[in-house]
Amino acid sequence: MLSLADFTLTELETVVQTAVSFREVLSRRTPKVPALQGVVVTTMFFESSTRTRSSFELAAKRLSAEVLNFTPGTSSLSKGETILDTAKTYLAMGANLMVIRHQDSGVPQVIARAMDQLNSGVGVLNAGDGLHAHPSQALLDLFTLALVLNPDNPSTSLLQGKKIAIIGDILHSRVARSNLWSLSTCGAEVHLAAPPTLLPPGFAEAFANQSDRPGERSIVQHSSLAPALHQADFVMALRLQRERMAQHLLPSLREYQQHFGLTRDRLICCRPGVRILHPGPVNRGVEISSDLMDDSSLSLISDQVRNGVAVRMALLYLMGVGKTASE
Amino acid sequence: MLSLADFTLTELETVVQTAVSFREVLSRRTPKVPALQGVVVTTMFFESSTRTRSSFELAAKRLSAEVLNFTPGTSSLSKGETILDTAKTYLAMGANLMVIRHQDSGVPQVIARAMDQLNSGVGVLNAGDGLHAHPSQALLDLFTLALVLNPDNPSTSLLQGKKIAIIGDILHSRVARSNLWSLSTCGAEVHLAAPPTLLPPGFAEAFANQSDRPGERSIVQHSSLAPALHQADFVMALRLQRERMAQHLLPSLREYQQHFGLTRDRLICCRPGVRILHPGPVNRGVEISSDLMDDSSLSLISDQVRNGVAVRMALLYLMGVGKTASE
Amino acid sequence: MLSLADFTLTELETVVQTAVSFREVLSRRTPKVPALQGVVVTTMFFESSTRTRSSFELAAKRLSAEVLNFTPGTSSLSKGETILDTAKTYLAMGANLMVIRHQDSGVPQVIARAMDQLNSGVGVLNAGDGLHAHPSQALLDLFTLALVLNPDNPSTSLLQGKKIAIIGDILHSRVARSNLWSLSTCGAEVHLAAPPTLLPPGFAEAFANQSDRPGERSIVQHSSLAPALHQADFVMALRLQRERMAQHLLPSLREYQQHFGLTRDRLICCRPGVRILHPGPVNRGVEISSDLMDDSSLSLISDQVRNGVAVRMALLYLMGVGKTASE
Repeated sequence: MLSLADFTLTELETVVQTAVSFREVLSRRTPKVPALQGVVVTTMFFESSTRTRSSFELAAKRLSAEVLNFTPGTSSLSKGETILDTAKTYLAMGANLMVIRHQDSGVPQVIARAMDQLNSGVGVLNAGDGLHAHPSQALLDLFTLALVLNPDNPSTSLLQGKKIAIIGDILHSRVARSNLWSLSTCGAEVHLAAPPTLLPPGFAEAFANQSDRPGERSIVQHSSLAPALHQADFVMALRLQRERMAQHLLPSLREYQQHFGLTRDRLICCRPGVRILHPGPVNRGVEISSDLMDDSSLSLISDQVRNGVAVRMALLYLMGVGKTASE
Repeated sequence: MLSLADFTLTELETVVQTAVSFREVLSRRTPKVPALQGVVVTTMFFESSTRTRSSFELAAKRLSAEVLNFTPGTSSLSKGETILDTAKTYLAMGANLMVIRHQDSGVPQVIARAMDQLNSGVGVLNAGDGLHAHPSQALLDLFTLALVLNPDNPSTSLLQGKKIAIIGDILHSRVARSNLWSLSTCGAEVHLAAPPTLLPPGFAEAFANQSDRPGERSIVQHSSLAPALHQADFVMALRLQRERMAQHLLPSLREYQQHFGLTRDRLICCRPGVRILHPGPVNRGVEISSDLMDDSSLSLISDQVRNGVAVRMALLYLMGVGKTASE
Repeated sequence: MLSLADFTLTELETVVQTAVSFREVLSRRTPKVPALQGVVVTTMFFESSTRTRSSFELAAKRLSAEVLNFTPGTSSLSKGETILDTAKTYLAMGANLMVIRHQDSGVPQVIARAMDQLNSGVGVLNAGDGLHAHPSQALLDLFTLALVLNPDNPSTSLLQGKKIAIIGDILHSRVARSNLWSLSTCGAEVHLAAPPTLLPPGFAEAFANQSDRPGERSIVQHSSLAPALHQADFVMALRLQRERMAQHLLPSLREYQQHFGLTRDRLICCRPGVRILHPGPVNRGVEISSDLMDDSSLSLISDQVRNGVAVRMALLYLMGVGKTASE
């Protein structure tokens, strides 16, 4: 599970339906199943993220897997070992699934390829790599959207024709990239809006052209907020990294907030019943005004986090079932 | 469980009796019960403390709960997220109980209030906040005292009329504050002794006046050691923070030790059978002489740590029973 | 389990045979046994090592023990507590086994002695102390060698008369010291090779003379690679610490690699079927050439890591069985 670029609609639907099952498990009195008993899940977060690691860790524990947290700060990497040798060490120890986050694009792919070449049977889950992809985030976003559209029978088909605006630092966002693949595969119309330094001219076209069937993907880009929000069904704000200011890509947070920050007023042009998403952590009052964020009739942020556990259970289960040391 | 200021005698007794049950569990061949199966306990230690965190973690595991350790060093806080949003994230992930330590007074209260406003059903346990409170420490102290007074039938009523001396940096001690509430509620006579820089004139009176019934609380303060130790049944030494020297509140550790350090000689004026407590970690030879510390006929320090697991099991159980994702 | 200096052949054989059993457990569909249910294993790594800690942690979990990780970075040590008081705190909390790594030689011994004096029943496992010993590593090396010599019936007796070359920084290697004890006890001929700065004249003799029966131990030292490799059955390369350069003990990594690095060519003088070991992490291309490392017909490095879990299960089991809080 490295990128959503090659996920088919059927595969996306499988993830959604499996997450539906685990969402039901999580609502039980004892929200735990023995599905991955004996399976070892290693989290390897070379870039730190307590939030995503906790979500994967809890998902693994709810499936009765063993979790080993590898923290590179106190690791053999500082002793000169290569990342591949670190991964091979965890393979030899008995890891069945590796959840990998790295600041450089492509690291999970490199590890996955090495694991394949060794016929290891190890499944690699990309938990965010550089600017490339963050597939579990996009899948939990998809599941959250489907649940809002039909709580009793969520499905990818509900996304067909919906207008979804993604606002913010598209250029540096792996969350945006992964969502572009999954949402456009489901037939949604994705509208991007950001200052030109964070969304260069031609981005949407170039992105779609990476695909086999670029013509079937509906991705439109804008350099201001209003056309993206117009009649939108959902608005996804992206996190603004403070280092963009140091890179002279933005004059100030305040400047960004004035032109691209979501407020109650600006949502008037959206469709009635519009809902807001954000991958977190949020800079309150920058990407989203504080009152919008706390308005549970508008904000889906808590739903995203909650659904993240079910979606990650689905991913670990789909990749890990049947994998124990003996096989 | 935020402060002991509003704990009634009945509530204190409930904690003691529940701890008695879990102490029995801990003496079994397999010292584990399924009481909190499926419950998620999140430890959020913004101020680091391996000792207290390990104690809560082991207590949670002995109750079959899942434990998620949030470590702010590698967290989204450094990315600008507010503490409340961090807590809401863990709530959405499925946390049922949050064990919170923070260097600032009041943080657990703020989180608890937010959790209540959201009708989340989450229980917040204060594991130490600033100079305010450290209720689980005072409760394990209370349980330890009650067990010494009657190992077969420990009870808060045994504390009635006992003289307990608390020695050291009262002014900066959340342990002292929490003990003042619990011990005086049980009817003990609490005597405080410290240099005036660490125990300002009028402290005891001002403290008692925060209470509904100040007249019923017996708290006396002294500026030298001897009157506090005279006929004392128990002596509790507090940890001396080395930063007090930098703040010019104390000339040197040696100076403190000469006037307020506990030694075998100085305990002669106590009651026969006097026992010594310390919340740890101890600066050996400063608050307590090294030979006193290692004399198991006098020191209750290991008992405090041991009883800490049973008391924290009791607190987690009392707050967490019946709380799983479904409710 | 502090050092292999006083391990008898019978004791080494017991570890090997117990590891055989747990290796079988690890090949099961659910590779977990309830052998240490209720037992608390505390890992105390004052010197950091994710690899060894993960291996012990997984071994403990496969035996159904509870694991508490003590990380001194965020600990009371920085508050002035002594290491012994930290150990006593974990004892009081209920630790049954302590796995200790420390940068100073002798720390696990000091803690073990204190635990004995307290009649605590706590077992202390040395996971590496200074330059002194790393017994679990040498035992997994022994198990790996025995398995290669007879996969169906591994035994220490198979080592009798085998020639094993240990190459590298012998002087600063606790791995080498522990292997010298175990391998020579099994009757192997151990040949050491290193530059004189890393293997002073007289080292082998002085080492053997620490033993009761020095004449029965066959340890030979060389100042060049060829005589050590000549007709060797196994070659163990040691990790080269980069700080040796700063200490002026070596001119450069390249210099070392040219004279002592293992390459395919240099192995020609070994016995046919020679196999290579390394405790890891490896500096690729320094101690061992990259192609040798990845040649699974020659390198036993992954086997060592894999067998490490079974051997550590054996050690935890042998020391921990029957130990729960009640005893």
